[in-house]
Amino acid sequence: MQKNEVMAGWFTEQMADQGTAFSLRLGKGRHLHGEKTPYQTIDIYDTETFGILMVIDGCTMVSTRENFLYHEMMTHPALNSHAAPRDVAIIGGGDCGTLTQVLKHPEVRHATQIDIDERVTRLAEQYFPELTEVERDPRATLLFDDGIKWVKDAAQESLDLIIIDSTDPVGPAEGLFGRKFYKDCIRALRPGGLLVQQSESPLLHLDLIAEMAGYMHEAGFAATRLLHFPQPIYPSGWWSSLHARKGGTQWVERLDAAAVKALGTRYYSAEMHRAAFVMPPFVAARLGTR
Amino acid sequence: MQKNEVMAGWFTEQMADQGTAFSLRLGKGRHLHGEKTPYQTIDIYDTETFGILMVIDGCTMVSTRENFLYHEMMTHPALNSHAAPRDVAIIGGGDCGTLTQVLKHPEVRHATQIDIDERVTRLAEQYFPELTEVERDPRATLLFDDGIKWVKDAAQESLDLIIIDSTDPVGPAEGLFGRKFYKDCIRALRPGGLLVQQSESPLLHLDLIAEMAGYMHEAGFAATRLLHFPQPIYPSGWWSSLHARKGGTQWVERLDAAAVKALGTRYYSAEMHRAAFVMPPFVAARLGTR
Repeated sequence: MQKNEVMAGWFTEQMADQGTAFSLRLGKGRHLHGEKTPYQTIDIYDTETFGILMVIDGCTMVSTRENFLYHEMMTHPALNSHAAPRDVAIIGGGDCGTLTQVLKHPEVRHATQIDIDERVTRLAEQYFPELTEVERDPRATLLFDDGIKWVKDAAQESLDLIIIDSTDPVGPAEGLFGRKFYKDCIRALRPGGLLVQQSESPLLHLDLIAEMAGYMHEAGFAATRLLHFPQPIYPSGWWSSLHARKGGTQWVERLDAAAVKALGTRYYSAEMHRAAFVMPPFVAARLGTR
Repeated sequence: MQKNEVMAGWFTEQMADQGTAFSLRLGKGRHLHGEKTPYQTIDIYDTETFGILMVIDGCTMVSTRENFLYHEMMTHPALNSHAAPRDVAIIGGGDCGTLTQVLKHPEVRHATQIDIDERVTRLAEQYFPELTEVERDPRATLLFDDGIKWVKDAAQESLDLIIIDSTDPVGPAEGLFGRKFYKDCIRALRPGGLLVQQSESPLLHLDLIAEMAGYMHEAGFAATRLLHFPQPIYPSGWWSSLHARKGGTQWVERLDAAAVKALGTRYYSAEMHRAAFVMPPFVAARLGTR
């Protein structure tokens, strides 16, 4: 098996350092598109059972069938863990799936998406139009720029929520996982603001998660907590995001039944919100309770 | 890619009807054992990152690294959903992982494991000794017999809990997923007794889950509920079990903190118990609330 290849009608992502691989059988369209941008390689495949699949640098990013799991769980638990999220920034997230979920919240007055690679968004417009309709929302701003620099230059205490919807912590996204960037985030957040970052698999990457949480605390965040959810096309099928809070003494849970129902979500609900933050003992033992 | 093959140092399970495949890279030991029993084909692999892997008829069954997820979640939520589980039957489960977890409960006075294929247990003794130490427990009885027939012949109202820890609903396990077998189960259970069955992936097999729940109700069970948990080596990485209750008007939740802690579990806890029964809206919509 070679790395991240198409062979005999299958796309395979090999997680070299984890000793695992995940494959999807291709449909009639097979390899719909492939290009090398200044930042990364993007491929679009037609799969037999998961719809369209976007692959960046050989890693599965998003498929038609299951992206609701990731996008709902990267957004609603965070928005409902803030008393009044008005100004939101999304770093990465060029497919606009995260932005779509964020702008379901009427209390959000402005959401800025900063993805370094415009091609991700243009290809999403073509292959995942259900995710990019949100571009027409007057509260949305799409920037194609360096998210690390954007956060560094953001006005002090100008944001309520920063969502890091990036690729893995190697390559272009590496700088998004570290002390220096987290310090810039905390400066840009208002008191009570939240940083939310995709944090890989609780089974496979627990050391990384612990390290990220440590850096967030060192950067000055008052508390962190982990959320977990299924993610069938990512390594181990089990994924997480890490929340970090600027100040405050406890986590907000704003779970008005009618407001949650109005989101029209398939995986997220008020009860799933609470359930997703419950940590299995082996995860709690490694991360501690901060 | 051919079906369920070893190629260039990887074991691959192809889920033909789902258009997905999962692979583990083999370690130095590679293919440790392979045999064709009267019932099925069993292979044992040495994987690079998941420890030993047992494969039955080409399907991954259990690995050293992650079997705690499945075995804990197939047992403790059920045992703690019964007021006083004394007599337990496990249909399948030849690797003894389920039995190990069941007998952690001091209130269980007798557990009978009925697997049709003795070779599963003998190979588990060799390759997963941590799962088979439980054979020495005087409360354990291991039978190598047809589980369907065993339940049919069981004394009326002689069991508190029946756990169906089987392979997928094709081949030898097919008869374990259906009306006739569920009727035999309900007869063998005492009032308040529970039937618990592994019920595949909430993402991929929701129709099957709904069908199973329907058959359980038709067989006379008063209520069913679904539990979900991560399961990295099974299709989609997200798995479920279905609980069915004989009589009663509500679900028991017996979650004494000290008793739960004494189980020494890595994924299961009192809070995880409650969280695992919370259904995502798309699952609830398909299964309804019965």
